[in-house]
Amino acid sequence: MAKHKKSAKKVRIGVVDTMFARYDMGAAARFELSQCPGYDEKFTVISQTVPGFKDLAVAAKNLIERDGCSIVVALGMPGSAPIDKQCAHEAALGIMQAQLLTSTPILEVFVHEDESSDPEELVSVFENRSRKHARNAYWMLFEPEQLSQRAGQGIRQGFDDAGPLSLP
Amino acid sequence: MAKHKKSAKKVRIGVVDTMFARYDMGAAARFELSQCPGYDEKFTVISQTVPGFKDLAVAAKNLIERDGCSIVVALGMPGSAPIDKQCAHEAALGIMQAQLLTSTPILEVFVHEDESSDPEELVSVFENRSRKHARNAYWMLFEPEQLSQRAGQGIRQGFDDAGPLSLP
Amino acid sequence: MAKHKKSAKKVRIGVVDTMFARYDMGAAARFELSQCPGYDEKFTVISQTVPGFKDLAVAAKNLIERDGCSIVVALGMPGSAPIDKQCAHEAALGIMQAQLLTSTPILEVFVHEDESSDPEELVSVFENRSRKHARNAYWMLFEPEQLSQRAGQGIRQGFDDAGPLSLP
Amino acid sequence: MAKHKKSAKKVRIGVVDTMFARYDMGAAARFELSQCPGYDEKFTVISQTVPGFKDLAVAAKNLIERDGCSIVVALGMPGSAPIDKQCAHEAALGIMQAQLLTSTPILEVFVHEDESSDPEELVSVFENRSRKHARNAYWMLFEPEQLSQRAGQGIRQGFDDAGPLSLP
Amino acid sequence: MAKHKKSAKKVRIGVVDTMFARYDMGAAARFELSQCPGYDEKFTVISQTVPGFKDLAVAAKNLIERDGCSIVVALGMPGSAPIDKQCAHEAALGIMQAQLLTSTPILEVFVHEDESSDPEELVSVFENRSRKHARNAYWMLFEPEQLSQRAGQGIRQGFDDAGPLSLP
Repeated sequence: MAKHKKSAKKVRIGVVDTMFARYDMGAAARFELSQCPGYDEKFTVISQTVPGFKDLAVAAKNLIERDGCSIVVALGMPGSAPIDKQCAHEAALGIMQAQLLTSTPILEVFVHEDESSDPEELVSVFENRSRKHARNAYWMLFEPEQLSQRAGQGIRQGFDDAGPLSLP
Repeated sequence: MAKHKKSAKKVRIGVVDTMFARYDMGAAARFELSQCPGYDEKFTVISQTVPGFKDLAVAAKNLIERDGCSIVVALGMPGSAPIDKQCAHEAALGIMQAQLLTSTPILEVFVHEDESSDPEELVSVFENRSRKHARNAYWMLFEPEQLSQRAGQGIRQGFDDAGPLSLP
Repeated sequence: MAKHKKSAKKVRIGVVDTMFARYDMGAAARFELSQCPGYDEKFTVISQTVPGFKDLAVAAKNLIERDGCSIVVALGMPGSAPIDKQCAHEAALGIMQAQLLTSTPILEVFVHEDESSDPEELVSVFENRSRKHARNAYWMLFEPEQLSQRAGQGIRQGFDDAGPLSLP
Repeated sequence: MAKHKKSAKKVRIGVVDTMFARYDMGAAARFELSQCPGYDEKFTVISQTVPGFKDLAVAAKNLIERDGCSIVVALGMPGSAPIDKQCAHEAALGIMQAQLLTSTPILEVFVHEDESSDPEELVSVFENRSRKHARNAYWMLFEPEQLSQRAGQGIRQGFDDAGPLSLP
Repeated sequence: MAKHKKSAKKVRIGVVDTMFARYDMGAAARFELSQCPGYDEKFTVISQTVPGFKDLAVAAKNLIERDGCSIVVALGMPGSAPIDKQCAHEAALGIMQAQLLTSTPILEVFVHEDESSDPEELVSVFENRSRKHARNAYWMLFEPEQLSQRAGQGIRQGFDDAGPLSLP
């Protein structure tokens, strides 16, 4: 174990989630990160909860600028009403801007409440998407070749991979 | 009472509302803040009223940058016509940008005039949402654990909590 | 009269309008400002005309940054075709950003050509909204209590006030 | 002729157009500018062509910041499919932001391919709008009174002027 | 061959693509660049893969600011559901902002999954559009006259050129 290397500055990964979501997306993301190589050794996780998904952008920006995170996973659940779609759009644009203002990736992990009418399936979407994007965050920092090897392969989070286009 | 500690710099919470809204949302928010621990001791409230909800963003930014607020509650009421929805979208994007430019949370509290056709219910939405978000602002500054304890719990403002997803 | 105080730096209010509009909104705004206390004494008005409403944002920004205006009234008339609605949205987002980049209020005064099919009524909307927002600009600079006293009162520009929600 | 005054720094007007458009809008704009008083004496024209209308914004920004243009005419032709409308919106927002970041006007000259189903009429729209906005650019720099004299007169580019509202 | 000029600083062209796309767009772009004059002599190519198209903007910005690229080709495939269209819009706005913040062109190369229901045709769109925009990037850096010669000629990527408007 490398616990004696504690003095080296560890990389920080931020996780920000909401009270609004109906599933503990942050816990799923943190669990996945705890399974990644070097957890608590080469990187640590910093978490914050905000009221709703429109509050994610500035929180993520502060996790980067104030708390020194090198990447952030931002998790939220837009509702199913038309106004929720508009709010999700505003939240997504905020997350986009926060990335550009910090030159740091923020992985937007949104599960729309109406992606499935079956609660069990919806839970699996929450769990799968949150964990896969947490893994993506880890890869982006430590194993970028995992991403480039999958370029154009129709990789998905939440549901099964679409796979590359298949010709008849 | 700690009134003798007056010389310590108090935290400031901003409240900005509009003439356009048909309910005194700012008063509701201020009342809630007056019920929070440490009111007028550890934090004070600064208020401003602007013409309409599109004027909230720059006012909130100035409450932060010019008046030293650590967080702002921005309250408005979009009308029910299609053009009102578009204006609300523009106002919300402005509030999003103001947060990112100041690295400071601004809680957007919008009650859409068509959320209920029953005036009594609409009043309760105005009152409940304005107060709950004022409380959220207080929590974000002084008791962030209140938020993290409720992560993924389907917390709502204005109406009853949706609660976490329940599996059969 | 205080004309001898000319050496004191007067506050400047900007008015920017368009060739595209079918009513001289800028003239209406300037007339209202000329009726406000202290006109040409404590404040002066600086005007500019641009081709269309998409040109208002940068012009307003320059009235603030280059010409020293403390607030700007930006007046335009979006047409009734769908593409006009989209252009109005872009223009409004630009005005929002100009405010945030300058930390200065710019009151967006848009009259949509299809707000009324009756030319006489439309003229009254042009006149009333342009003048009321010019008055708002004056209030924001010199009498902010006029705004806070009307918080949540359903104040409108262009048409009659909606008034506060009335309970049965 | 004042050709001996060459050493004085001439004002620069930028013209940026696209390969995507189906009409040489840049040529029309340049022709109009060549007819303006002081062409090549008090002002010169700098041109650039980009692939499509989404590439106009950053090109216009560089014409201003890198090449010293005092104003830019940005010309493009959005297609008729729904996705083209969305792309036109993105392009227009980019041009808006480029103006605000440079505090310099960029006249967006878009001709939508579906403004007319008659090719001859469409050509006249291309020609008329490109030239009128080029003239507007000239006026904004050298004869701003041309604009203010036409405030609220329902001036159009591409089609006939709408004129001011007429009361019965 | 100019291999001895290695010490001169080579221009860098960035290529960023996604795991989400169902075709290896980055490979197509890189192949085209490898066929351009001066490949690996006067310019080199730097590549990165991100999870989805919303992650392109900040990656492109870093390719410019951190890795010194003079232009970037950003390739992605939005899906066919309504939410995919909204996400594509957000991604496109991010790419637009990244260009403006860096004053550097980023060619957005999006192939919408529903541009064709025929997989073979869709593959040809992927291949053609990716390569043509890679060529455009090369032209913008090294042969801008290739673009200006084609101004207003209805040039397309992905499908056949529309050509200039033809009059009867």
